[in-house]
Amino acid sequence: MLQTIESIIQEAHRLVSMNPSGMPVLAVAAAQDREVLEAVETARKEGLARAILVGDTQRIAEEARHLALPLDEYELIHEENVTQAAATAVRLVREKRASVVMKGLLDTAVLLKAVLNKETGLHAGRLVSHVGVIESPYYHKLLIVTDGAINIAPSLTEKVDIIRNACDCAMALGIALPKVALLAALEKINSEKMPCTAEAAILSQMNRRGQIPGCYIDGPLALDNAVNKEAARIKGIESDVAGDADILVAPDIEAGNVLYKALIDLGGAKGAGLVMGAAAPVVLTSRADTAEVKRASIALALLVAFGAREKQ
Amino acid sequence: MLQTIESIIQEAHRLVSMNPSGMPVLAVAAAQDREVLEAVETARKEGLARAILVGDTQRIAEEARHLALPLDEYELIHEENVTQAAATAVRLVREKRASVVMKGLLDTAVLLKAVLNKETGLHAGRLVSHVGVIESPYYHKLLIVTDGAINIAPSLTEKVDIIRNACDCAMALGIALPKVALLAALEKINSEKMPCTAEAAILSQMNRRGQIPGCYIDGPLALDNAVNKEAARIKGIESDVAGDADILVAPDIEAGNVLYKALIDLGGAKGAGLVMGAAAPVVLTSRADTAEVKRASIALALLVAFGAREKQ
Repeated sequence: MLQTIESIIQEAHRLVSMNPSGMPVLAVAAAQDREVLEAVETARKEGLARAILVGDTQRIAEEARHLALPLDEYELIHEENVTQAAATAVRLVREKRASVVMKGLLDTAVLLKAVLNKETGLHAGRLVSHVGVIESPYYHKLLIVTDGAINIAPSLTEKVDIIRNACDCAMALGIALPKVALLAALEKINSEKMPCTAEAAILSQMNRRGQIPGCYIDGPLALDNAVNKEAARIKGIESDVAGDADILVAPDIEAGNVLYKALIDLGGAKGAGLVMGAAAPVVLTSRADTAEVKRASIALALLVAFGAREKQ
Repeated sequence: MLQTIESIIQEAHRLVSMNPSGMPVLAVAAAQDREVLEAVETARKEGLARAILVGDTQRIAEEARHLALPLDEYELIHEENVTQAAATAVRLVREKRASVVMKGLLDTAVLLKAVLNKETGLHAGRLVSHVGVIESPYYHKLLIVTDGAINIAPSLTEKVDIIRNACDCAMALGIALPKVALLAALEKINSEKMPCTAEAAILSQMNRRGQIPGCYIDGPLALDNAVNKEAARIKGIESDVAGDADILVAPDIEAGNVLYKALIDLGGAKGAGLVMGAAAPVVLTSRADTAEVKRASIALALLVAFGAREKQ
């Protein structure tokens, strides 16, 4: 089981070094973005992945010049239109010429639309959702936080997919039976005033009935109960998950976003992020992410991509 | 301007030492709670406050024996019934025999009902809300987080009161013109899919029109934009608040609760909590709070109570 962000990067290196077909390939959609080019160049230089740059080749060349990036090491595909660039990057993964889709200079919605296209995309019959992997100096293992970036107010059935996607990510980190905490503002069920507490209760029971296998689910739990055994004990909560969660499922995008950012921006944590649920992982870094987060996110995507191939 | 939780405690000591009528008084509702008694005894021993213990005197005496707490130093009022105990504690504050209401062994709802009673309570014509004061090792000043404990899904007008209450708390900390960030999952307004972003826009404009004076309000802001100047700069956000917020207003109780607890339980932060908006501050500590949080919460309540008296 991987315990740190650095170990994610090391494990990705190990898998790449054992890979008979060499470095895995990132398909970058609308690659004319300096920071994304910087991140893929770092990955290339350290032998982690190579990239096919899909986008406006003239603008890519300009950015490459600024970065002193050796463009002859890259395959380029010219697509000025960003919608077209997204479709092409996705097609490269469909055709197994690349393993991971990476977002460049285009809206997330445009990229996800290409990913989710039922005919030409990477639709896997499941909702896509964002997972953040967090290494906090105040927790004893990695934490997966979901979904603070894509699904605004997920329904009960959508939460089932959000949980499954997070469990797939946990599996790539070597967590065989992840402990899933469904977060709310408290641990009591108040179905009238706080519907998310009732949903959490339903999802927990679905897990006990075998309807959501491969994990332990418990909720509603307030965050302190989920990550702090002593807080759970004082509250008298009996749970396989409380105090030892691997996955924190937020009730909605606001809570998920605030949680992820509280840990990164005000909690001294390191992070990596990914979109799960499609036939291949999608790296969606934000311009405000540090180079470290981008590097870790690429490594995490590679772990997930390798894991998916092993399952086939 | 106070910069640390410890300085809140020191400032409370300073105000108490200058107070002609001696130590201020806490009215404890349903005081038969060992941890609450421990907290008020600490406050008494360090000369910060004395307490009137309202509740089941026999059970109070039992707990006092366990703690070796000198009950002859306390005024006791026997009220077996917790609803009655809440009403009596509130009455003590109404009659100016105490300055702060403190929750003992009863439900928050029961206590707040007594506080909000329009005839016998401490109703001040305003919504009551919870504020958490946070000292994070990753931020350059104290942060007020609201409301993660009382108001589930506040309306626009309720958010105005939540902001006012937080500003009153900021004033007690010596922050003359607090910077208020209205949190959402992003900084763009999406009124259809994320109503809280539109509410944040309205509240920001109300502030510019002078309808919510005494502070700078800006939103929607994602948490990173609110507390990290570099993240705000990269996103091109022009704002008096971004990167330097004093007050973080969560869109709802789930986001507020997760934020407060992320900082305390996974962020290495120190905290204090309080209910604002009534005619006197109400200390609502939870059993899972550490002794340090309880001590700081009492000191914070005293600062607010002294501040309110100065305004009269």
